[in-house]
Amino acid sequence: MDMKIALIGFGLVGQSFVKILKNKHEKLLEAYSFDAQLVAVSDILKGSVMDPKGLDLGALLKTVRETGSIEGYPGGVKGLDSLDTIRRSGADVVVEVTWTNLETGEPGLTHIKEALRSGKHVVTSNKGPIALALRELLDFAKNNNVQLRYECTVLSGTPAISLGLEGLAGQDICEIKGIVNGTTNYILTEMEQGGDYSEVLARAQEMGYAEADPSADVDGWDAVGKICILANTLMGSDIKPKDVIREGITGISYEDIMEARKEYKRIKLIAHAWKTEEGVRAKVSPEKIDLSDPLANVNGVTNALTYNTDSLKEITIIGRGAGGAETGSGILSDLLALTRIN
Amino acid sequence: MDMKIALIGFGLVGQSFVKILKNKHEKLLEAYSFDAQLVAVSDILKGSVMDPKGLDLGALLKTVRETGSIEGYPGGVKGLDSLDTIRRSGADVVVEVTWTNLETGEPGLTHIKEALRSGKHVVTSNKGPIALALRELLDFAKNNNVQLRYECTVLSGTPAISLGLEGLAGQDICEIKGIVNGTTNYILTEMEQGGDYSEVLARAQEMGYAEADPSADVDGWDAVGKICILANTLMGSDIKPKDVIREGITGISYEDIMEARKEYKRIKLIAHAWKTEEGVRAKVSPEKIDLSDPLANVNGVTNALTYNTDSLKEITIIGRGAGGAETGSGILSDLLALTRIN
Repeated sequence: MDMKIALIGFGLVGQSFVKILKNKHEKLLEAYSFDAQLVAVSDILKGSVMDPKGLDLGALLKTVRETGSIEGYPGGVKGLDSLDTIRRSGADVVVEVTWTNLETGEPGLTHIKEALRSGKHVVTSNKGPIALALRELLDFAKNNNVQLRYECTVLSGTPAISLGLEGLAGQDICEIKGIVNGTTNYILTEMEQGGDYSEVLARAQEMGYAEADPSADVDGWDAVGKICILANTLMGSDIKPKDVIREGITGISYEDIMEARKEYKRIKLIAHAWKTEEGVRAKVSPEKIDLSDPLANVNGVTNALTYNTDSLKEITIIGRGAGGAETGSGILSDLLALTRIN
Repeated sequence: MDMKIALIGFGLVGQSFVKILKNKHEKLLEAYSFDAQLVAVSDILKGSVMDPKGLDLGALLKTVRETGSIEGYPGGVKGLDSLDTIRRSGADVVVEVTWTNLETGEPGLTHIKEALRSGKHVVTSNKGPIALALRELLDFAKNNNVQLRYECTVLSGTPAISLGLEGLAGQDICEIKGIVNGTTNYILTEMEQGGDYSEVLARAQEMGYAEADPSADVDGWDAVGKICILANTLMGSDIKPKDVIREGITGISYEDIMEARKEYKRIKLIAHAWKTEEGVRAKVSPEKIDLSDPLANVNGVTNALTYNTDSLKEITIIGRGAGGAETGSGILSDLLALTRIN
């Protein structure tokens, strides 16, 4: 199947995705008859280029690597902004990988709406729009007879959403529980070795596992966005980030961790959603988890989710939750799903 | 989507599947527009009944519960054998859930071939035919323009195959490693508490976790069948059970388990497949697994698999590996996949 792709956002994830598309082209053609062409890229910092005949992926990657911009790409139409790129690129699919804003969802929300409105499938790794407006966007997609896929908004390329939607199709998922933020799990894991919170945070920042302003992670906002996405995708709810009870890890001390240890438990920042008679409830907070629970043994930056269903009971998936190659490959799996699904 | 189903085999799995179909009918219609009709059931011991207008699931379950047979079902055509049922039922899909024979694949192999030949999709939980003849059966399905799905042949309804095929689409899976047999994992887990092998086996037999003749489990044959299915599905190989290096757990002593414990390891019966330059190799044997590995913490009858891929590295899924409701729900997920996939 031929597929024309417009890529909005050309940072780490966008570039990793293009590398995968380039390196796997032959294999994908052979295994899935999947023949993708990148017809446009637009990035607010690096510029934009469009060529309906398909961009040369090697030249594109070389240009950005050498100049930090794509303005020097040989050929194509330059200078379109992201919305014009979406409208004019002639793509079948828009891959939206700009930055996450959990308060407004922008600019991703506008990009996704514009793409769906113009009859293009959307694949995105952008948590903001999906956490804030999933129900609206899915209705939008349905009315325009296109698909919206967003595997990488949770656990990056680890296929947690596909597992819930496709693998567990027909199951009633009554509870979702997991470790969905690598930064906080790294900090909690390191604190076990004897560091206190601020010391370990500083080390995580040095290693690039935590941002200079770590609040989105350590205050639980990132996990809040993800549990909204999971609950609204797999439990039929329409909860918003503001509806989620939230407590971060900044109050956790080494003593708390040792106390839990004595009870054969580990403290983890748990994102949790569960069905009640009044609807779905969700919460992000540090919880003491029994060492016999698979989640207790998920350490460092690794992520994990447990779905509790009517027939299968607990199903756990463990994998990486971040990274360029990981997210790029998750975008690819979403694109392949578009070729498979009616 | 309407779907007419013929069910071959009406033991625990067949009956559990019919219960799920009955109990979830309204929900499936609402959530997936999935409207399944069971048009025939055939079982070598319990008899057979066919009704192209659809069988009454409640009456069918009541009849088998009260009489141990379906001969007393009110109405329908009786007395067809399994092959005639497949040929004459007018079904779109044949669900094959007869017993497993890992040496010949029969009678499942003949059932599946006949169904595919007559242009019907097949969903099966029967390991024998899939372990022995997957490549041939997939070619058969392709040539007849139908699908063959077999989620429940590995980890019952825990969606390990869907995870590999759909969730990890586009990934290169270079290694598969896991605990795929609940009986042996239960025995090894219990032995840690101090029992010796034969004592714990006897207890497992009492509890129904091990067969009277436990050799298919404890000698590793069941795991051999499953690793063939996984490797051939996800690594493009065509290995047969006889190609798999095999060692069971009958030689494991309490001392071995304690020895491993001192090294911060647990002994698990590991099914393992990996790519080499000369093709895919597979092995089933007891291995010492580091306690930091998610597989080491999978205890009792629970199963787990780790896929190692080029971009995502290790992805682990943990869940139940047996049971009527679990397998019945996995069959349902395969049926729903048929409605989704081109």
